[in-house]
Amino acid sequence: MRNLITTIAALLTLAATAGAQDLFTAPEGNWVRTSMTQRQSEFPKINEKGEYWFRFQAPSTAQNVSVKFADGEFPAKKDAEGYWNVIATCPKPGYQLYYLIIDGVRYADPGSEVTYSNGWTSTIEVAAPDDTFYEMRDVPHGEVREHWFYSNVAQEWRRAYVYTPAEYETKHKKKYPVLYLQHGAGEIEEGWVHYGYAARIADNMIAAGEIEPMIIVMNNDFVYRPGDNRGRLALADNWSQNFADMFLGEAIPEIEKSYRVIPDAQHRAMAGLSLGGMLTNNVGLANSSMFAYYGIFSGGTVSNPENLDKKTVKYIFETCGELEYPERIAKDCETLNNMGFKASYYVSPGTAHEFQTWRRSLHEFLPLIFR
Amino acid sequence: MRNLITTIAALLTLAATAGAQDLFTAPEGNWVRTSMTQRQSEFPKINEKGEYWFRFQAPSTAQNVSVKFADGEFPAKKDAEGYWNVIATCPKPGYQLYYLIIDGVRYADPGSEVTYSNGWTSTIEVAAPDDTFYEMRDVPHGEVREHWFYSNVAQEWRRAYVYTPAEYETKHKKKYPVLYLQHGAGEIEEGWVHYGYAARIADNMIAAGEIEPMIIVMNNDFVYRPGDNRGRLALADNWSQNFADMFLGEAIPEIEKSYRVIPDAQHRAMAGLSLGGMLTNNVGLANSSMFAYYGIFSGGTVSNPENLDKKTVKYIFETCGELEYPERIAKDCETLNNMGFKASYYVSPGTAHEFQTWRRSLHEFLPLIFR
Repeated sequence: MRNLITTIAALLTLAATAGAQDLFTAPEGNWVRTSMTQRQSEFPKINEKGEYWFRFQAPSTAQNVSVKFADGEFPAKKDAEGYWNVIATCPKPGYQLYYLIIDGVRYADPGSEVTYSNGWTSTIEVAAPDDTFYEMRDVPHGEVREHWFYSNVAQEWRRAYVYTPAEYETKHKKKYPVLYLQHGAGEIEEGWVHYGYAARIADNMIAAGEIEPMIIVMNNDFVYRPGDNRGRLALADNWSQNFADMFLGEAIPEIEKSYRVIPDAQHRAMAGLSLGGMLTNNVGLANSSMFAYYGIFSGGTVSNPENLDKKTVKYIFETCGELEYPERIAKDCETLNNMGFKASYYVSPGTAHEFQTWRRSLHEFLPLIFR
Repeated sequence: MRNLITTIAALLTLAATAGAQDLFTAPEGNWVRTSMTQRQSEFPKINEKGEYWFRFQAPSTAQNVSVKFADGEFPAKKDAEGYWNVIATCPKPGYQLYYLIIDGVRYADPGSEVTYSNGWTSTIEVAAPDDTFYEMRDVPHGEVREHWFYSNVAQEWRRAYVYTPAEYETKHKKKYPVLYLQHGAGEIEEGWVHYGYAARIADNMIAAGEIEPMIIVMNNDFVYRPGDNRGRLALADNWSQNFADMFLGEAIPEIEKSYRVIPDAQHRAMAGLSLGGMLTNNVGLANSSMFAYYGIFSGGTVSNPENLDKKTVKYIFETCGELEYPERIAKDCETLNNMGFKASYYVSPGTAHEFQTWRRSLHEFLPLIFR
C-alpha cells in the first residue's frame, strides 16, 4: 500500500512539473566565472552589471528551492535541462555567505568556494568601492605559517596561524611587536587570513609605510578541557577562562620562544571580531598589564574600565558596522576618554555583523598600534 | 490545476511516510564524535567497534537518501524526529571521502570536515594499522608556510605551501635540499599538508633520524594561460607545458631566492600523486638534468627512459595501491634497472587510488632521497 501511494504521488508530482510553463531561460549578457567559482564548475557566473547567476542540481523530488544570502532569499527556477537557476541582483559588497535552501534544508553550493562559518557555507566575493586596501598587490609579501604547539590545558595539539612580514626572512637580528588577533564564533583560526585578508592588508600597509612591520598571531578561540560540555555555538561553559589559560599560559610563551618578538606589554596588542572581541575584553583587558593596545570589532564594549592598568594601556579601539550599535561604542569611548584613556571608534558604512566590517576595522586599527 | 496536483501529491507522500513502520532507532553502545566531526555538530559519531553513525537532515520531500563511500553505499533511514541515519560498518582504513546522495544528487555532509577533492566532499579519518607514521607526535614540528608569488605565465598570483623543518628557524646558516611535491587532479596545493600529512610524516622521520631535514614545496598543478580552455578535470589543453613554464621558470627560482636551499640538481627531488606523478614524468623526468630523485605515486610509469640524463638521475621510485597496477610498476623498474638506473617500487597493501596509498608512498620515498 505504501509503495502504491508513493508511486501515485511521484506520478502526480511529475505531471505538475511537466505542466509548468515557467521554465528558466538563460539570460543575455556576458557571463563569466566568479573569483570563487571552483575549478571544476562553470557556475556561479557574474555579468558586467555585477549580477550573479547560480545554477545547480537539486534532488529530483525537490519542490521549493532558493538561494539565501544574509539579506535576501531568491527563489530558484528550473531550466529545460533540470538544473535550478537564480539571478541575484546586487548582493552587498564584500565577502558574502550563502546557502542553497532545498525544501527547508540548507546545503552548500557545490559550485562555489566553501568555507567554515557556523557550519559549511558557500561564498562569493562581491566588488566593493573600497576593496583596494585588501587586494593582492605587487608588493613584498609576508608569509602565513601553520605553527603547532601542545596545550596542557586542552590536552591537544593546537594550530596557530602566524603572519610574519616580508622582511622577517632577511633582517635576522630585528625583533618585532606582535598583534594577537582572534576570529569570531563561527570561524576557525584561518578565518582572518583566508577571508579577513589580514596578511594582504598588512602587506599593503607595510609596503606603503602606513604601519610598522609586525607579527600577527591567530589562535583558535575554542578551548575545551577534557570533559567540558559544548553549549551554545559549541562554547565550553567556562570558555573565557579556558581560553585565558591556554592563551596567556601557553600560546604567548610559545610564540615568544619561537619567533623574534619584543616580549613586553608595549609591543603586544590584542584584537578580535565578535567572539574574538569578547575574548579581547574578557581575557586581554582583564589582564591589562600584558597588552598596550586593544581592538574590539563588533564585540561589545569594555566591561570593567575601572580595573585597567593605566600605566600599560595605550589605546583602545572599538568598531562595528553601521547596522550594528554605533551609539554604544561612541558612548563607551567617551566614557573611556573621560577616565583618561586614549580610545576611539570606527563605524563601517553600510555594513552589519560581517567580514567587510572587520576587514575595514583591521585596516583602521593597524596604524594606531605600536606607535 | 498545477497547484492542486502538487498539493494532492504532497498529501499522498505524507500519507506514505506516516504509514511507514520502519523508523530508525538509536543503536546501543558508546558513541562519540569523530576526529572530523565539525565543532557545531554532534554527528558523525564512532563506537568502540569502529562503526560510524551518520545523522543528518534531508529536504522534506526527499525519498531516497544514502551515504556513499568510494567502496560502498549505505541507504539511510528516517528516525522519529525526521533526521536520516546510517550506520556504516568498517569503512576502509585511512582518509575516506563520502557524500550524501539525496534523490540522485550528491551533497557534502554538513556534520563532518569538508574538503576539496573533485568538488566539495565530506571526510572521515578511519583508524589504520599503520597510522602511527602520520600521527601527531611530541617531536619538534616544522612549519608550513603560505608563500605567494606572481606568475607571468598564468598572469596571476599563485600560492605555494612550503614545509620548513623545525631546525630551519635556528640553524641560520644551513642550506637544505628541496623536494617538490605535487597533488592530484582532484585537489589543490594544500592537499599534501591537510590530508596527505606530509609535514607530520617529515617531522616524525626527521626526529627519528630516518631522513635528513629538507624543505618540501607544494605547488598547484593547474596552470592556465589567459584564454586557455578548461577541458576534462578542468585541465588546460596544454597543461604539462603550462606547468613546466610556471614550475621550472618561476616557482623553482622563487623558492631558491626565498629560502636557504642548495640550488643544484643533486639537492632537488620531484614527486607527485596521480596527476602530480604524471607531471613528475612529463615535466621533471623530461628535464632530468634538473632533479636527481623522482617519485611517481599512482601516476603511471616513466615515459622516455632513453632520454634521461644518466649523470644526474640518482633514483626513480614508483608506487601504487595493491588494487591499482602493481605489475606495471614492477616491470617498469626492471626495465629501468636493466638500463642502469637505480629504481624500485612499493605497493601499498589493500589500498586503491587513495590517500592511504600516497601517505605510505611518501613515507617510503623520503628515506631514499638526498642520501
